[in-house]
Amino acid sequence: MPAARALYKFSWGSTFLLHKLVPVMLSSVGADTFKRFSSTDCVAAASTSHEEIREEAYLWSKQARNVSQGDTVNGALARGLNYQALGNARDAWCLVNRHYSAHCNDKCTGEFSNKLADAKDVMAAIHNVESARFPVLTPNLKGFEAAVAAGAKEVAIFASASESFSTSNINCTIEDSLTRYRDVVLAASKLSIPVRGYISCVVGCPVEGAVPPTKVAYVARELYDMGCSEISLGDTIGVGTPGTVIPMLEAVLGVVPVDKLAVHFHDTYGQALSNILASLQVGISTVDSSVSGLGGCPYAVGASGNVATEDVVYMLNGLGVKTNVDLGKLMLAGDFISKHLGRPSGSKTAVALSKLTAHASKL
Amino acid sequence: MPAARALYKFSWGSTFLLHKLVPVMLSSVGADTFKRFSSTDCVAAASTSHEEIREEAYLWSKQARNVSQGDTVNGALARGLNYQALGNARDAWCLVNRHYSAHCNDKCTGEFSNKLADAKDVMAAIHNVESARFPVLTPNLKGFEAAVAAGAKEVAIFASASESFSTSNINCTIEDSLTRYRDVVLAASKLSIPVRGYISCVVGCPVEGAVPPTKVAYVARELYDMGCSEISLGDTIGVGTPGTVIPMLEAVLGVVPVDKLAVHFHDTYGQALSNILASLQVGISTVDSSVSGLGGCPYAVGASGNVATEDVVYMLNGLGVKTNVDLGKLMLAGDFISKHLGRPSGSKTAVALSKLTAHASKL
Repeated sequence: MPAARALYKFSWGSTFLLHKLVPVMLSSVGADTFKRFSSTDCVAAASTSHEEIREEAYLWSKQARNVSQGDTVNGALARGLNYQALGNARDAWCLVNRHYSAHCNDKCTGEFSNKLADAKDVMAAIHNVESARFPVLTPNLKGFEAAVAAGAKEVAIFASASESFSTSNINCTIEDSLTRYRDVVLAASKLSIPVRGYISCVVGCPVEGAVPPTKVAYVARELYDMGCSEISLGDTIGVGTPGTVIPMLEAVLGVVPVDKLAVHFHDTYGQALSNILASLQVGISTVDSSVSGLGGCPYAVGASGNVATEDVVYMLNGLGVKTNVDLGKLMLAGDFISKHLGRPSGSKTAVALSKLTAHASKL
Repeated sequence: MPAARALYKFSWGSTFLLHKLVPVMLSSVGADTFKRFSSTDCVAAASTSHEEIREEAYLWSKQARNVSQGDTVNGALARGLNYQALGNARDAWCLVNRHYSAHCNDKCTGEFSNKLADAKDVMAAIHNVESARFPVLTPNLKGFEAAVAAGAKEVAIFASASESFSTSNINCTIEDSLTRYRDVVLAASKLSIPVRGYISCVVGCPVEGAVPPTKVAYVARELYDMGCSEISLGDTIGVGTPGTVIPMLEAVLGVVPVDKLAVHFHDTYGQALSNILASLQVGISTVDSSVSGLGGCPYAVGASGNVATEDVVYMLNGLGVKTNVDLGKLMLAGDFISKHLGRPSGSKTAVALSKLTAHASKL
């Protein structure tokens, strides 16, 4: 089962935030950098501006393992949910790593490999989806080659700012992972395949606790220098507040251009939207999220899913940010997958709007 | 049953926000205005700095009607939860109004009056709680006199920025309510009793939709001019984002000093923390919240509770704001009331920390 990821370009619908919020944290960052909104592991269907939407899908997720095979993606697509989403990039990191590790030198757990045996089927199923991007998470060169063989047009690599988390998540040190990723990016560049870089634990690690901004900046710079087209900064366990997020962003912004950065917040402590607001204020214009707040990570105890896309879109709409995401259709996608997984939506916006709709239908 | 409300003084624990956040929206507002954090309908018990904590309790809440009488407040106090909280100010508005309306000219529903017959018992029960404030919501002069007779040392009045909501909530026009409140404030001033003013629907109304900032500013100015010691701006149905909240705050700040203002966000659409962050940025230093996110309103379809105090405290801790709220004891209070009401906590921070604690206990 794939987890979809979408990048939405946006432009400011009003000048309000241009002078009120943008100059706040980093006055040197111009307002014109607020141009994209990225929705991770989710989706809005049938946007009115498809040409402005790039979509990516990650393969295999924790959620996917609970979904009966064969009906979800194709079924959703057949029902008109063009970019159905099923998971969370963080999960995808963990699991695709195990999957591909069957083909490489990584430690591999049979449990994950067996359950991810449908990877090629997923790639085949989404092969004809247009106006979408489906980058595949690749832990090393062999993983990259397998992804390309399966039809991947874009890939992603995933480092950590925490040594402990790097070891538990991808079974190697940060330096070793960067060495592997250089091979991936070099191979990808020869095929003109873009590579998105992820950094986990950018403010906190479940093992090490607080992570120094300088460490994040170091890894981000390495990913940038090796040629990543974009770098997503992930608060994997959702412990950040603007008090820790902003210093981290400032450190990274010192070594990587703002238009190459994205933020990726899990909403474990309910802080994601305020962190996103703070990120917008320093000039970040790409935001990862997941429909209905799906997600989690087996290597981060207590971690919840990404911030819910519906809640992010609601805030951006309120800020006058044009995302080209149809909130109504996004809710349909969220409702579909939540019912399919047998769990309530993790989006407060979706829950509130559903209540209003139900109330209106009784009048 | 009472719903408790607490005002926590805070000071900045670091200079981070002093230059990074404070100047953002209203550069004329000095950092020294960030001095208080108010926690509504909640509570942290046994803070290490009791002298800096003022607590208030509102009588009667929606939740209270589901709680068996007689054991909650005294029971919680007896168990060491000094300032147990049971509800939400917004609920209190609605219900105490009905209660007191039995003594005045307001329309009264027998259902509410009957269920609130224990008001005097509650006042008697909390009479000896020290280091706490228990302002009583009073819709008019007779309500005020009844509150004083019951032992109230502080009262609150509650207007609306929406005509429709004023009519449905307190059964009179905004102007009529202001006329009544002038009588209350005058009588209170003669007894040196402070009056807190609330304004509901400051960005949106369930009937009228968007509420103009000028209307909020008008009501706020009236409450200020009549002598309210503080004015709490309530997004009753939780529809606001920083895109609507900031213009509203700017309008109000044009007519009322910033140190007289508080913000009161319901988290219906998940926007409360980002709205609080934006409010801090314009210089507001008093924030209402409710333990475990309790609350709601029978006159606002789909409205959820206030933002959870645990989540607000977590963010403020991350921002380096000293609140003197003990998050651990706050969680105990939240756990107590959530179990008592038979509902899960509405605080993501509480849920996350509980999982971590449970995980740690297994190690």
